[in-house]
Amino acid sequence: VIADLQRLVGSEHVVADPRPDLLADASAYAGVSGVAAALVSPGSPEEVAAVVSWCAERGVPVVPRGGGTGFSGGCVSQDPASVVVSVARLDAVRSLDVLQWRAHVEAGVTTARLARLARENGLRFPVDPGAAEQSHIGGNIATNAGGPHCFKHGVTRAWVLGVEAVLGNGELVTVGGPTRKDVAGYDLAGLLCGSEGTLGIITAAWMRLLPAPPVELPLAAVLPDARAGQEALDAVLGCGVVPAVIEFLDAGSVRASAASFPGGGLPADAGFVLIVEVDTSEADAEEVAGALREAGATVSRPDARALWRWRDGVSIAVASVHGGKLSEDIAVPVERLADAVEGTREIGERHGLEACSWGHAGDGNLHSTFLLDPADAAQRARADEAARDLFALALELGGTVSGEHGLGLLKNGWLSRQWSPGAVAAADAVRAALDPAGVMNPRVKRP
Amino acid sequence: VIADLQRLVGSEHVVADPRPDLLADASAYAGVSGVAAALVSPGSPEEVAAVVSWCAERGVPVVPRGGGTGFSGGCVSQDPASVVVSVARLDAVRSLDVLQWRAHVEAGVTTARLARLARENGLRFPVDPGAAEQSHIGGNIATNAGGPHCFKHGVTRAWVLGVEAVLGNGELVTVGGPTRKDVAGYDLAGLLCGSEGTLGIITAAWMRLLPAPPVELPLAAVLPDARAGQEALDAVLGCGVVPAVIEFLDAGSVRASAASFPGGGLPADAGFVLIVEVDTSEADAEEVAGALREAGATVSRPDARALWRWRDGVSIAVASVHGGKLSEDIAVPVERLADAVEGTREIGERHGLEACSWGHAGDGNLHSTFLLDPADAAQRARADEAARDLFALALELGGTVSGEHGLGLLKNGWLSRQWSPGAVAAADAVRAALDPAGVMNPRVKRP
Repeated sequence: VIADLQRLVGSEHVVADPRPDLLADASAYAGVSGVAAALVSPGSPEEVAAVVSWCAERGVPVVPRGGGTGFSGGCVSQDPASVVVSVARLDAVRSLDVLQWRAHVEAGVTTARLARLARENGLRFPVDPGAAEQSHIGGNIATNAGGPHCFKHGVTRAWVLGVEAVLGNGELVTVGGPTRKDVAGYDLAGLLCGSEGTLGIITAAWMRLLPAPPVELPLAAVLPDARAGQEALDAVLGCGVVPAVIEFLDAGSVRASAASFPGGGLPADAGFVLIVEVDTSEADAEEVAGALREAGATVSRPDARALWRWRDGVSIAVASVHGGKLSEDIAVPVERLADAVEGTREIGERHGLEACSWGHAGDGNLHSTFLLDPADAAQRARADEAARDLFALALELGGTVSGEHGLGLLKNGWLSRQWSPGAVAAADAVRAALDPAGVMNPRVKRP
Repeated sequence: VIADLQRLVGSEHVVADPRPDLLADASAYAGVSGVAAALVSPGSPEEVAAVVSWCAERGVPVVPRGGGTGFSGGCVSQDPASVVVSVARLDAVRSLDVLQWRAHVEAGVTTARLARLARENGLRFPVDPGAAEQSHIGGNIATNAGGPHCFKHGVTRAWVLGVEAVLGNGELVTVGGPTRKDVAGYDLAGLLCGSEGTLGIITAAWMRLLPAPPVELPLAAVLPDARAGQEALDAVLGCGVVPAVIEFLDAGSVRASAASFPGGGLPADAGFVLIVEVDTSEADAEEVAGALREAGATVSRPDARALWRWRDGVSIAVASVHGGKLSEDIAVPVERLADAVEGTREIGERHGLEACSWGHAGDGNLHSTFLLDPADAAQRARADEAARDLFALALELGGTVSGEHGLGLLKNGWLSRQWSPGAVAAADAVRAALDPAGVMNPRVKRP
């Protein structure tokens, strides 16, 4: 195996029996650990195709790997026979067409690098998942990544014009390209978005960009509890302005993170906080602030840069409370946000765990979280049970078990509870169509 | 056949040996005429499923039919054994959730009805293909329809949260729903967008809506020729404002339609016209107007309602010049717009036909048109040859043979020139996966 792979990508780009830390993603916190025959880092899309072809011919599982920042174990190989394919060396910016609002980048370009390139040229790449310095564009596409600014601007799918990928049979294909509209063929580029490496390995993409918005005006609104928060959210949605961002923190999340809030504007005993950013005009920001105040909120205007630095740290602040956490990413219809927030806390109580949630209020997308001491195996087991109750709650509320992270390894089996057997069979048929040998990330995204 | 179908949907909803006018779409102008065993109009998604199951079991071709406004013959049955399934009776608005910016509508709801519902409630459905009073939401999804305002707001796909559909095996499935984010399963809702009835029949959809923009400020910019038009387009794209609309008309289109332009603002001898609509603020409109003037344009500010009424009539005005036309919908990278405009005219000249183009400049999407006398068979034949040259030009410029209309019947065979064999094989495999019996619109969207 190793000799063959070395021949395909060069011996210095093959690691035999890779250590688990080379295979891990953020699900390491949930105890997910990887094992594989080899970790290979091809230097070109053609080398990716050669590796996948080699594997497909021999029935060897292929686990594609981006920046390793996923929360579901989607890139963590579980089979000692697997070949893990990292796209880290595919990191060229093939073109940046400023006037055409687009970039052609390889899969290993980091989210932050594309975002910086855009900013430096008066443009914006509005998809802003966590861990932007580590996560890759290829991984963003493979998980259809979101983030706070996706409320107004849409998740990754909305920014992909075309994709170059190696499919499960080892074919290197390009679907879409620099053109902004195309209905000649099926939307295979869209199908690859969120496919979690089970249909192919993305090697490059044409990404759409946007002129930088004229302003970034964040508001922080403090409310007594989640019910009041839902009413304030309704007030924002009804005020006629389309904010760029509508985030929330429940009481537990505020408690964990309020101390570092910029300008000291957040009382640690706040029951619920909405963070709304307006990117159109000062008048629009005042309109939203007025709607929030009418809904009973105390509104402050934090500094944008400081706010987003703080927001990036919320997850870590929550984890620090007891040293660990199990964090999920359910999404519900936006009018059920308060139900999901309260439900998260109740599920925690039922399992003897402190629970909290924060996330993308405008999209009804919660990072529902159970706090735990990672050394306590019993807590760990109770958190796993709590997560199962949480997924059931999401479905009961008409939502989904994953708004952002995907099924990965950790949510295998849950799609069958969300979709009808006919829809699951259709997904299975599509998977078999693009991965006839069944080698593409075979343990992942199992319905 | 007829007796069975009558049993499934009620005898009054089955037309045996339907007349061609019941089967036609806008491709009638290109001589496309339909034939079928029956036209059935099911009254529920379950009846649609029953009809498709019946057909799949017997290998009878199914041709789904919406408002019949397509330009590619995608719904025009060509097989005397086919069953044409109209979704016209599935016309319920299942829910309109104003505060959540969304609607749940059946496939037979017209585009105009959804747009009006949105407007009446302070919202907007920004997808605005032609023939909005006739075209159905189901058809919009099946063709991934666009329109002028899709420059800023994206084509139909961007507005579909979830789809209910009957797949090729007769299974009624729902993928997606009222939730705004969902990465649990593959994006099968997105895959159905633009699938032209070859993967299933859409019976209902959850559609996203948007708060009405604060203003609608159109600008008309007159330029000497297409090259100057391209420079003016660049100036708009570079000015920092994101317009809602960037349309264009070349010299021939202006000549045909200038007489009815609102306010008399359009000189009939204009070489090129850009129509830009700003929906953010008067200051932004002035910014764009300034950029256009600096690029050498003469800028006027027509009335928005009158402008869009006029714009709706451009296609008819062009057709009226010689009584008929063959109109296509290629799209190219936006920086190649002038090349495509000039190329269209040159191809016309080469085939002895007057040619012009207009369309969605910001998306690089041209309605390239060859004028003809419909009674002149020789002109007709030359127009077909010209269209083939046009598709070749689109591919040469790095574009697509269809930005809006789809392959339908008329562009069968062209995807194989646009995509590599590997990508075409992937599309074929996906088709076979969701339509194992090969009965779904089998003559349409053949790569």
